[in-house]
Amino acid sequence: MEVEIGRAKSGRRAWGFDDIAIVPSRRTRDPHDVDLTWEIDAFTFGLPMMASAMDSAVTPRTAIEVGRLGGLACLNLEGLWTRYEDPIPVYEEIALLDSDKATRRMQELYASPVIPELITQRVREIKEGGVIACASLTPQHVAKYVDFAKAGGLDILVIQGTVVSAEHVSSTAEPLDLFKFIREVEMPVIVGGCASYAGALHLMRTGAVGVLVGVGPGAACTTRGVLGIGVPQATAIADAAGARTSYLEETGRYVHVIADGGMRTGGDVSKAIACGADAVMLGSPIAAAVESPSGGYHWGMATFHPTLPRGSRVKTGVLGTIEEILLGPAHENDGTRNLFGGLRGSMATTGYATVKEFQKAEVMVAPALQTEGKQLQRSQGVGMA
Amino acid sequence: MEVEIGRAKSGRRAWGFDDIAIVPSRRTRDPHDVDLTWEIDAFTFGLPMMASAMDSAVTPRTAIEVGRLGGLACLNLEGLWTRYEDPIPVYEEIALLDSDKATRRMQELYASPVIPELITQRVREIKEGGVIACASLTPQHVAKYVDFAKAGGLDILVIQGTVVSAEHVSSTAEPLDLFKFIREVEMPVIVGGCASYAGALHLMRTGAVGVLVGVGPGAACTTRGVLGIGVPQATAIADAAGARTSYLEETGRYVHVIADGGMRTGGDVSKAIACGADAVMLGSPIAAAVESPSGGYHWGMATFHPTLPRGSRVKTGVLGTIEEILLGPAHENDGTRNLFGGLRGSMATTGYATVKEFQKAEVMVAPALQTEGKQLQRSQGVGMA
Amino acid sequence: MEVEIGRAKSGRRAWGFDDIAIVPSRRTRDPHDVDLTWEIDAFTFGLPMMASAMDSAVTPRTAIEVGRLGGLACLNLEGLWTRYEDPIPVYEEIALLDSDKATRRMQELYASPVIPELITQRVREIKEGGVIACASLTPQHVAKYVDFAKAGGLDILVIQGTVVSAEHVSSTAEPLDLFKFIREVEMPVIVGGCASYAGALHLMRTGAVGVLVGVGPGAACTTRGVLGIGVPQATAIADAAGARTSYLEETGRYVHVIADGGMRTGGDVSKAIACGADAVMLGSPIAAAVESPSGGYHWGMATFHPTLPRGSRVKTGVLGTIEEILLGPAHENDGTRNLFGGLRGSMATTGYATVKEFQKAEVMVAPALQTEGKQLQRSQGVGMA
Amino acid sequence: MEVEIGRAKSGRRAWGFDDIAIVPSRRTRDPHDVDLTWEIDAFTFGLPMMASAMDSAVTPRTAIEVGRLGGLACLNLEGLWTRYEDPIPVYEEIALLDSDKATRRMQELYASPVIPELITQRVREIKEGGVIACASLTPQHVAKYVDFAKAGGLDILVIQGTVVSAEHVSSTAEPLDLFKFIREVEMPVIVGGCASYAGALHLMRTGAVGVLVGVGPGAACTTRGVLGIGVPQATAIADAAGARTSYLEETGRYVHVIADGGMRTGGDVSKAIACGADAVMLGSPIAAAVESPSGGYHWGMATFHPTLPRGSRVKTGVLGTIEEILLGPAHENDGTRNLFGGLRGSMATTGYATVKEFQKAEVMVAPALQTEGKQLQRSQGVGMA
Repeated sequence: MEVEIGRAKSGRRAWGFDDIAIVPSRRTRDPHDVDLTWEIDAFTFGLPMMASAMDSAVTPRTAIEVGRLGGLACLNLEGLWTRYEDPIPVYEEIALLDSDKATRRMQELYASPVIPELITQRVREIKEGGVIACASLTPQHVAKYVDFAKAGGLDILVIQGTVVSAEHVSSTAEPLDLFKFIREVEMPVIVGGCASYAGALHLMRTGAVGVLVGVGPGAACTTRGVLGIGVPQATAIADAAGARTSYLEETGRYVHVIADGGMRTGGDVSKAIACGADAVMLGSPIAAAVESPSGGYHWGMATFHPTLPRGSRVKTGVLGTIEEILLGPAHENDGTRNLFGGLRGSMATTGYATVKEFQKAEVMVAPALQTEGKQLQRSQGVGMA
Repeated sequence: MEVEIGRAKSGRRAWGFDDIAIVPSRRTRDPHDVDLTWEIDAFTFGLPMMASAMDSAVTPRTAIEVGRLGGLACLNLEGLWTRYEDPIPVYEEIALLDSDKATRRMQELYASPVIPELITQRVREIKEGGVIACASLTPQHVAKYVDFAKAGGLDILVIQGTVVSAEHVSSTAEPLDLFKFIREVEMPVIVGGCASYAGALHLMRTGAVGVLVGVGPGAACTTRGVLGIGVPQATAIADAAGARTSYLEETGRYVHVIADGGMRTGGDVSKAIACGADAVMLGSPIAAAVESPSGGYHWGMATFHPTLPRGSRVKTGVLGTIEEILLGPAHENDGTRNLFGGLRGSMATTGYATVKEFQKAEVMVAPALQTEGKQLQRSQGVGMA
Repeated sequence: MEVEIGRAKSGRRAWGFDDIAIVPSRRTRDPHDVDLTWEIDAFTFGLPMMASAMDSAVTPRTAIEVGRLGGLACLNLEGLWTRYEDPIPVYEEIALLDSDKATRRMQELYASPVIPELITQRVREIKEGGVIACASLTPQHVAKYVDFAKAGGLDILVIQGTVVSAEHVSSTAEPLDLFKFIREVEMPVIVGGCASYAGALHLMRTGAVGVLVGVGPGAACTTRGVLGIGVPQATAIADAAGARTSYLEETGRYVHVIADGGMRTGGDVSKAIACGADAVMLGSPIAAAVESPSGGYHWGMATFHPTLPRGSRVKTGVLGTIEEILLGPAHENDGTRNLFGGLRGSMATTGYATVKEFQKAEVMVAPALQTEGKQLQRSQGVGMA
Repeated sequence: MEVEIGRAKSGRRAWGFDDIAIVPSRRTRDPHDVDLTWEIDAFTFGLPMMASAMDSAVTPRTAIEVGRLGGLACLNLEGLWTRYEDPIPVYEEIALLDSDKATRRMQELYASPVIPELITQRVREIKEGGVIACASLTPQHVAKYVDFAKAGGLDILVIQGTVVSAEHVSSTAEPLDLFKFIREVEMPVIVGGCASYAGALHLMRTGAVGVLVGVGPGAACTTRGVLGIGVPQATAIADAAGARTSYLEETGRYVHVIADGGMRTGGDVSKAIACGADAVMLGSPIAAAVESPSGGYHWGMATFHPTLPRGSRVKTGVLGTIEEILLGPAHENDGTRNLFGGLRGSMATTGYATVKEFQKAEVMVAPALQTEGKQLQRSQGVGMA
């Protein structure tokens, strides 16, 4: 829907997860008849999920645990694990920083250089855990570091930045030719982020097996304040899903749309799929796991930019084990545990059997602010019926 | 109104009670000339209301009092009253639980098995109070337990779950054939919840005399967070009312639309009728009555799901007797007492004589957030004119 | 704009003062070239304003002061001043009541009967102040009391209730025939409230010289919660202004639209005129004056309904003298003082010379929640440019 | 988009910065390939920015520092610097005022008369700093004072009021003929504020080289409350940009659109350009600089109107040096430092090379309240992915 902002400017109306809700259909289904399997390239996963390439979420240890439970964790190969032989003391320092000093100190801690040999070592540690090894590099450094990752036995490569385009312009450096690089790298590549139909379509044409969709959707991500840039996730995913269809019709190739960021509950995960995602990439839920060394904090890779930081270290608390968070059981009712039990329940309640079918679920535009207004108004003394 | 969410997804705009307001017409009427009678099947009630099948609201004692005042209370036959010979100590324990432990402990308390003989006994207790006996069972267990309820003299059966469809798919169990069951059960059946035109229409075709409309509308219901599913009540009711018209034209049979959940004030009740409901089902207002043993707390049947709880135990406080809450007099101005005096006043102010006519009242879309914004802005030092 | 709420219900989108803003035009004007004169029937006022028939606002003393400043105050002839020989102690008690007991005690205080002779006396007191005497009665009692008011020398009669219609239905009492009554009463009559095109049009046809527009717009009015009824003021006024045009074309008679309620600042007053009002009726701003005996509190006539109270006693504080509040000077920047300096400034800034012309000012839909969101976000450390 | 408010009134929907977001395109660019140069009349600036003619922001000292960094600061020639030989003690007093007394005391402090010789002296002080001298006068006083400014060597004149129109009506004074004055004044003139297509177009026709766009957009500006007047900035800028195109087609002359007010972060600055501005005028960010004598407070020229004040003294705190605020580095992630690093990053992320090209960036309507709702909901325990 095109909206006039003023005489010289119009823009589409965009929507986030909190603006929509999934609608029951005329059919229901037993939860155990719901199939959550996700197949991408030659790999099959029990859950349609990745864990984000963020130091607070993915470590060699949490990667192995996520893999054991059926997901795919992505280690950041330009983060603490490749800058420090033993990053655990660094995690401990970060968890103890005062809020007003956290950004500045993290800028310093992340100024320590990447040690290429640690790239190989970290990937190998994940492989030794018996799971699929997935890790990320930035477009700026992927050419330089990818062979170190290959040497460790990397299975799936993620090329990731705030926004990655298939057409980067630079007058000083030869930009990465994504088309050529992906064709030659000899392993499946997932690339992102992007947040528009055109952006997703061009990334699909690079030969990637999946694209990450999401620019600034998370509540603690300050990209929208610092740069003014951001696309609410429901719209970003539905646009990328449209690109997937266009590209499929164009080429016969199916490129996966992976919703990256902004999901905290089983409801959010369900909405991402219902908007057209094939899988979701989760950061803060994994950072909040017992197994994370982050001490109940979460931060992204834009948090410590040396001159223009664009993210916060936020407190997540420790919500449970990775297994409890992904598969339950939940003993709280806020939707932050048993995320995929939530997805399974959502699919069962609306009668869908597979993730691919659930992309067709009906949704409504029903902003949560309505509900929150209601909650504010009713905060004292109200119930569910 | 269809809204584009993104290239591959659109959805209708949906509205809740707080988003709408009733508009005065060019006519007014004396309150004592307003008729609130509700007739369903062979029964006539003085008030167009049911009390929800939630343990915090309906007990044998409150059922009798609601019936005495002209309403119809529905006892949950899979709740505390059929799991415990004497449930009062369980209520007392629940009221004393710390918030962070309530969900987990309630999961345990509700794991105690249903004792079929108590089903018969509880229904009989209500009948002995001289009122119409109504009670609910889930689709999963209704076939197993219905004869115990009949033995107690049940008048009206409610088959209820979060979402009940006329087409449940299961590979492991023979699902309930609602059509067949309702035709054979030899008493009027009300069934729900549903929250869409198609869902309501298919439930109407099962032969039910009424359908319950509402999936996750309550402020304390966390279905929307946990599953992502929910339909704001004004839209859900107006859609179900549309199904009622379609089904009436199709068959000549009038199936009642009963708005279930999300109503706290006389204004909410009035809006539910104005959106097309024939009656309302109230939970938290009854849980807040002096006669409830819940100690000022309210919870639903999804609160204690063993692996995926989807509701909260919320504090309602004790607002007055059931009579004061339903029929007044009110000595507070927040609309939470004298709910049906409020409905009567609303109908008089807009000039309508019967509940059925009031379904035609004009409403406007005027989100309460506007008003709340105003209230926030004006919280210090403002009046009503 | 008609919005679909659901299959069986649609409604127009409605807007309040906080949802709109006045837009500068290509012209500006000196403030002293702005004319605020208001002419209605044979009367001319220096300001386009009435003071509301609420005990917290209008007393014989404040009525005289408002008149002296150019406005028209309306005394409630069924309030404290006609129920008590000396109401000052009652005001003092009300100001000292605890919030949780205020409604119940006010129900008792207003149960004291109206003493007809006091009607005559109060009107006379106002007349003796040398100003136009205006007072209100309800449709239920106007026939009984009007002669007592006439005896005191009443100049303008207001017939007022929450909603007054030209077509009241009652099976037990002969309702007031507004057409007949107004034709015979021998003084100009203003009637209301109403809040729709049809409601306003029918009231105009009764022969009234003005209609009061506003049902539940005030922040402290709980009609919307208790009855579900309410129309945001910008829409209500613009609809009534539409009725004024229709009626003018029909008959050649110009009936004044008086915006009643929901205005607290000069900006609100300006918006009411820009939406089409001929004048505004102010309650809480006058209740907040030094000259009011209400002790910094404000309440309406629906506050103390014996079984269904629909308003609050709200704290306004004491903001200044009536003169400061209406005409300034202001020494605060929140718009609550110098209301008509604000209107004058608004007209000058947009280039309009008379109140009637200012009804054509351009407005935009720009919800204040946007601004408030901004304010929330920016509450620490931000300025105006 | 025209919206019906009621029968007799419609208005366009307007949008502010917090309602929109910039959308990534399919291209990205190296930040050092982004050109921020701004050329207006014969002048070239390194940054597309002006500092506002507000005493809290622009002093001779800060004007020189802003100039040194590539911007253009505008001194208010009717503020403290021309009313007091040494205004520093006045700044100190203002910073120490209690909030409830600030407005009244500032009314007094600004009642001190303008000393014409100080106009000359202040402009000379700026010139002596080796930067372009820019200063503002009101339409009421520009004719009287402009020669004193010229005598000091003024390079660029700003004629500014809350709203300035090309057609001012006055019965008592001969209003300024902007056309004639600008043609004769012998230096480039920037004029404003305005906030509509027609208003901007008429100001462009006066011969000004730039127009200031913004009426009441700032969070601390109370014009909207006091007068009801205000246009959200995204719409105001896009409308003025439309006027720029019309005027360019009409005459071949390009008049600059300078967004004045409501910008606090790099994201806001980026959005102003993306909506069509050629440059931005910043107040509170400069008031928050170490070099400002305002002591961490900010106020505008409408704050101390003698009878109708329309702005607040607001606390900004001290955020850093002017250089850190404009050019970084930032050690916080909220976007309030390194504003033009933020603009540069925004242009790079969306692939644009020049400010003029960036006016074509795609934006979406995505109200920040959505995000804020999310943030409220998620304030405990959430991260960015």
